Amino acid sequence: MGDAAGIGPEIIAAAWNEIVQKHGSRFIIYGNPEIMNRAVKYTGGTAARLNEAVISCGNNDAADVPPGTVDARAGEAAYQAIIRAVDDAKAGKTAAVVTAPIHKEALNLAGYHYPGHTEILAERCGIRDFAMMLYLGTVGKYGLAVDHVTLHCSMKSVFEQITVENVLTKIRLVNDFMRKIRYNGQDGVNSAVPKIGICSLNPHNGENGLFGREELDIINPAAVKARAEGIDVDNSKPADTIMIDAKNGKYDAVVAMFHDQGHIALKLLGMYRAVNVALGLPIIRTSPAHGTAFDIAGKGQANCEGFIEAVNVAVKLI
Amino acid sequence: MGDAAGIGPEIIAAAWNEIVQKHGSRFIIYGNPEIMNRAVKYTGGTAARLNEAVISCGNNDAADVPPGTVDARAGEAAYQAIIRAVDDAKAGKTAAVVTAPIHKEALNLAGYHYPGHTEILAERCGIRDFAMMLYLGTVGKYGLAVDHVTLHCSMKSVFEQITVENVLTKIRLVNDFMRKIRYNGQDGVNSAVPKIGICSLNPHNGENGLFGREELDIINPAAVKARAEGIDVDNSKPADTIMIDAKNGKYDAVVAMFHDQGHIALKLLGMYRAVNVALGLPIIRTSPAHGTAFDIAGKGQANCEGFIEAVNVAVKLI
Repeated sequence: MGDAAGIGPEIIAAAWNEIVQKHGSRFIIYGNPEIMNRAVKYTGGTAARLNEAVISCGNNDAADVPPGTVDARAGEAAYQAIIRAVDDAKAGKTAAVVTAPIHKEALNLAGYHYPGHTEILAERCGIRDFAMMLYLGTVGKYGLAVDHVTLHCSMKSVFEQITVENVLTKIRLVNDFMRKIRYNGQDGVNSAVPKIGICSLNPHNGENGLFGREELDIINPAAVKARAEGIDVDNSKPADTIMIDAKNGKYDAVVAMFHDQGHIALKLLGMYRAVNVALGLPIIRTSPAHGTAFDIAGKGQANCEGFIEAVNVAVKLI
Repeated sequence: MGDAAGIGPEIIAAAWNEIVQKHGSRFIIYGNPEIMNRAVKYTGGTAARLNEAVISCGNNDAADVPPGTVDARAGEAAYQAIIRAVDDAKAGKTAAVVTAPIHKEALNLAGYHYPGHTEILAERCGIRDFAMMLYLGTVGKYGLAVDHVTLHCSMKSVFEQITVENVLTKIRLVNDFMRKIRYNGQDGVNSAVPKIGICSLNPHNGENGLFGREELDIINPAAVKARAEGIDVDNSKPADTIMIDAKNGKYDAVVAMFHDQGHIALKLLGMYRAVNVALGLPIIRTSPAHGTAFDIAGKGQANCEGFIEAVNVAVKLI
């Protein structure tokens, strides 16, 4: 359900009929019945039999939190819903978890000090090595996966994290993911090897060392190692060129060196359609790439395309 | 004309009828008649009376250079055409110069050691302080200007160039340029003040200092100074957000902190339409943002939209 005061409940309600019709009635909503009923009203009241899918978990007073406000009660309910969902998935009762946006501050007020969903899930699963990847299903034939070697850090601290091992790890992660997405299910094997591109750290691919040596010393050696493992990855190319190539379907996945390279392109290519995929967990978990959008919560205006895409990707991974 | 072995001559030929019809027959081509006649043939032979517009300058043996080859003879002819064009513009014989792509290596082989066009023009005009700006006319009502505080350098060397003075200079440059573009010509004044956005250097606008302090210590103080001068510029925002805002027409101009921020967005928003504008010269000078494209030269396949846009912007500035 996500944070009760954010757009989480209403994007589920808005997406409900489409996902049920497309994938069958196999969905459970972990959350609060009253909040979900209200969300159905916000979105025109058309979500069919949604109330039957709600498993009530967490504190009922979350329903008293007005839309768009940071409140510990909403943070507590969001946390309880996540825990119940991940436990059921771990136990094999469900095949995947799709999460709606939570609010970090509300979570903190409730006493849960995590930077986001993924860290809660990882801890609950007993996992230390995990990664978040972005996926945009609307580009090319199989969609586009984008993973970042560095993400939420200052630009000055990017350089120490650009290592052969870190680049290689990201290449492997997107390769494994896109093999699953491209899996045709007919002969039991992946018939097509994903094509992977790597953004140069420096402009113009470093101009052969003139604008920095990371491409020559770190990124391309990582690509050489990946190719030795049978991965179809090109040496680095200028980020602006590679995003055009990706847009034109030349790549299944792109490894970006820092936040803006991937995010500028993904937002311009498909603002509301981007999906977060957690990699490295024992359960399948996806989410829309946007946040709680407190400014429009409770108004029935939230765009549910990202949530629908998150469900689509989870089903594909199953 | 640009480099005789590149796509310069044929994009002029391909654009010819459209620019003459739109703006009147007021164009001179500085170049080689034989090369231009050949370019007319490459592009279907439809360019009307183009041969009458050619002012022959430079060495005739440039016509012997096959398409797609780096050759000193083509570099020499390109250089001579630029010099003649800039001298005529300085003397007031022409109102603006639009340049076609040159090849840096060919120019070097001919003995002219410049990184590009702009440096030749600046030296010929006796100017030391100049800047290149990118402009995309197809976004928003008035188009979008993008200038970069740092451009052709390693990412490691970006930080020392992010200063209040450098950011302020770029804000002023794009503001002056967009005032000209928005000039309505009716009451003799610019009725509308351009709206300018600034990309943060760090992801998420630095998260209030958590991901770096350049936004707080350098970029926003520069914005404060610019506002004190009457410029309508916002404080920095995340680059991925700002490019979406720019796409939606919220900004007339964006100041980017480094190469990829501006170039990823501009290429995705309008690959072939981007125009380079030289700022700080005593003459008006524009060019398409692409290069010589030796791989498709002589085949009549080159896209002339960037050249047409470069002419449109030059006429607007006149």
